Amino acid sequence: MSLEAVKEKQVPHVVIVGGGFGGLYAAQALRKAEVKVTLIDRRNFHLFQPLLYQVATGSLSPADISSPLRAILNHSKNTQILLGEVKDIDTEEQKIFLATGDEIAYDYLIVATGVSHHYFGKDEWATKAPGLKTVEDAIEMRRKIFLAFEAAEKENDPEKRRAWLNFVVVGGGPTGVELAGALAELAHYTLKNDFASIDTTEAQILLIEGVDRVLPPYPQDLSEKAKKSLEELGVTVKTRTMVTNIEDGIVTVKCEDKEEKIETKTVLWAAGVKASAMGQAIAKATGSELDRVGRVVVEPDLSVKGFANIFVIGDLANFAHQGDGKPIPGVAPVAMQEGQYVAQLIKKKLAGKSVEPFRYVDYGSLAVIGRHAAVVDLGFVKFSGFLAWLAWVFVHIYYLIEFDNKLVVMIQWGWNYFTRKRGARLITNPYLRTTPAGDGNSLNGMQAQKKEPVEV
Amino acid sequence: MSLEAVKEKQVPHVVIVGGGFGGLYAAQALRKAEVKVTLIDRRNFHLFQPLLYQVATGSLSPADISSPLRAILNHSKNTQILLGEVKDIDTEEQKIFLATGDEIAYDYLIVATGVSHHYFGKDEWATKAPGLKTVEDAIEMRRKIFLAFEAAEKENDPEKRRAWLNFVVVGGGPTGVELAGALAELAHYTLKNDFASIDTTEAQILLIEGVDRVLPPYPQDLSEKAKKSLEELGVTVKTRTMVTNIEDGIVTVKCEDKEEKIETKTVLWAAGVKASAMGQAIAKATGSELDRVGRVVVEPDLSVKGFANIFVIGDLANFAHQGDGKPIPGVAPVAMQEGQYVAQLIKKKLAGKSVEPFRYVDYGSLAVIGRHAAVVDLGFVKFSGFLAWLAWVFVHIYYLIEFDNKLVVMIQWGWNYFTRKRGARLITNPYLRTTPAGDGNSLNGMQAQKKEPVEV
Repeated sequence: MSLEAVKEKQVPHVVIVGGGFGGLYAAQALRKAEVKVTLIDRRNFHLFQPLLYQVATGSLSPADISSPLRAILNHSKNTQILLGEVKDIDTEEQKIFLATGDEIAYDYLIVATGVSHHYFGKDEWATKAPGLKTVEDAIEMRRKIFLAFEAAEKENDPEKRRAWLNFVVVGGGPTGVELAGALAELAHYTLKNDFASIDTTEAQILLIEGVDRVLPPYPQDLSEKAKKSLEELGVTVKTRTMVTNIEDGIVTVKCEDKEEKIETKTVLWAAGVKASAMGQAIAKATGSELDRVGRVVVEPDLSVKGFANIFVIGDLANFAHQGDGKPIPGVAPVAMQEGQYVAQLIKKKLAGKSVEPFRYVDYGSLAVIGRHAAVVDLGFVKFSGFLAWLAWVFVHIYYLIEFDNKLVVMIQWGWNYFTRKRGARLITNPYLRTTPAGDGNSLNGMQAQKKEPVEV
Repeated sequence: MSLEAVKEKQVPHVVIVGGGFGGLYAAQALRKAEVKVTLIDRRNFHLFQPLLYQVATGSLSPADISSPLRAILNHSKNTQILLGEVKDIDTEEQKIFLATGDEIAYDYLIVATGVSHHYFGKDEWATKAPGLKTVEDAIEMRRKIFLAFEAAEKENDPEKRRAWLNFVVVGGGPTGVELAGALAELAHYTLKNDFASIDTTEAQILLIEGVDRVLPPYPQDLSEKAKKSLEELGVTVKTRTMVTNIEDGIVTVKCEDKEEKIETKTVLWAAGVKASAMGQAIAKATGSELDRVGRVVVEPDLSVKGFANIFVIGDLANFAHQGDGKPIPGVAPVAMQEGQYVAQLIKKKLAGKSVEPFRYVDYGSLAVIGRHAAVVDLGFVKFSGFLAWLAWVFVHIYYLIEFDNKLVVMIQWGWNYFTRKRGARLITNPYLRTTPAGDGNSLNGMQAQKKEPVEV
């Protein structure tokens, strides 16, 4: 049904906020429904977040793991896409408000704006230990990592040089493990022959995890295997260790009441997350409960308590199966299934049918460690090593949205695998633009930065 | 000869400033010479500038047309690479000074720092009409172009919407022609079905050129063919037209004393260039002559007058063959040949041999217009159309430095060609980083920007 037909028929309006896995899968599943869909995102592209660490370590380009939302939903004739940021909800009038002040009426609202970093209340750490959630985060991380090697090459004081070659990754979940593995490979193989004054294989990569093992949501023996693989790659894994302070050049960690100060110029954050601001907006508008990190506690059908037409899905939702107090994890498959579920629910409701509660089907977990090791847990079978790595590669390429991305990523990976090269290790800096950004073309305040002098 | 051997033998030290075509070809040609080479660049990568417009229009990623300098010169054992910016020269002491204050002694100095934009004395235009010289420039241009379509989609006022869909490209040289062609293709094919409220094929692309034809350095009939191809793609070509003013939202042009005001939100600059700051530094240190745009007028052997061991090559050099007053153009093949020439000259001088003056061998010119049209001038033969396009593709892929870049670019182009898709059309913005940049890891003032609030 085309947008014109939709307009004439006055079909229900489904507004989806966020074009990540949850929002995108909901939109795709509503493609042929008798509804009008509006998908709103701050960005014009869908990002394949699980591979962001590959951008941060110079293997892939941002565009390789991104697809323009308009290109993906090109054939969804009932769907309009808007670039914008939602700030508020009026449940009475059934409207949302954009940052620009524009308002959009909805019949059904699906909120899927995800999570951001959380520094356990130490917001001042944010400037010192960047996290990894957006393309810009990844480019900043890439800049920090490759600048550290360049700075070490120029440094004559051995102690200072040492600090440039110390990398600390905070958080032993999948992102932290994958990041640490990629860093180790970078230092020990890729950059090995690239510098004249430093030996990059002397770089130390430290992975810090608070609980007693890495990949805590995985079975114990896979955590063991992951740790062993990391150590073989040259990563030092410190479990039961908490970061107690991050200052310029020094990270303080604590393990069993013993404090240690680590001199390092590069701290990368892969630890806590907190809900995006839409969580607060929903709580304010609906009185719904938020959990400790600000996620919205949802009903069995993913709706917000008392509001049968407002849904929260993906990382922003705190959903637990009945009889099981533990919320399901914030991973891509959950978001995909939730998006599809809510789309089906809306279609069934419109057809006057009843709806079963949401059930997450766990097909397994994957994490990769360096060049040819990974761990896979499919529930009925767990394995690790090269076969797991192949499975990981296959799954990740399979879920890349567009065909050309699949092809390019496959080639980049094949090439990187056999050569250990990383072609995308550009140190970029907006201040090195030769002309400053104008203000004539900013979209509703989405301004570019002003030029400032740069010395290198 | 390894760097250690080089140090012990006290061989001459060749310092190359700039890792573009000139500097890189000089370094590569000195790879086996009995010299120590230091290549200094502000960036850690070599950029294939002729394809920057493909990044600006969303076809390629920055990393596809960039190669890490360390990776390229990996096997040059006599070569050290430094990330840094050269600020000054002391010819007496034979030293250069970095922005950090560090000094480096040279026996031979090769300066190849290129050119930047020039707004004919109207520096205030810079913020309104970005140019295209760096990766960051291209990303900013891409942001402006794709934001314009997004803004048009949201705009209800037809006049304002019109202004968002008007694109003005200033300058009818190869960059301007290629940019205008790519923009036309984008609006008329790629984005055609992607928007609900606007018809992107109504976008107007205006190419403004001051002289009487586009591609002025080419033969007359190829200029005609280029103009025709552009018009077939939907570009309006205005020759003999000067830009007299650029304000927010309005460009004023003048053609045969008739002034016209064009309402547009997107002005892209592909007109004048001016020499990089090193030109001034050389003039100050050596008293050498600079031309109108600040390029250094060099001797027949590319040295600076009175300084047989200081050379200027590439876009920064103003070189004319003897008996021919006209300087040779600022294109990649000139820079490559000059880099190789100076390397040979140094080797010959060290061997006590005499040196012939530099002669540029012109193998021809190429420019591409949209999807399958290009113009080629090889001197003995000129042609245009699809065959010219294939020649252009071949030459550009051939000169991409690294094998994986060639492969990826070939696939991207093949894919783009058959689908007219552009997968790399990301609107990115450093302010959308979830964590602000720190200052703990800046390299000698190469700071990242502070986070500022963003509304979309």
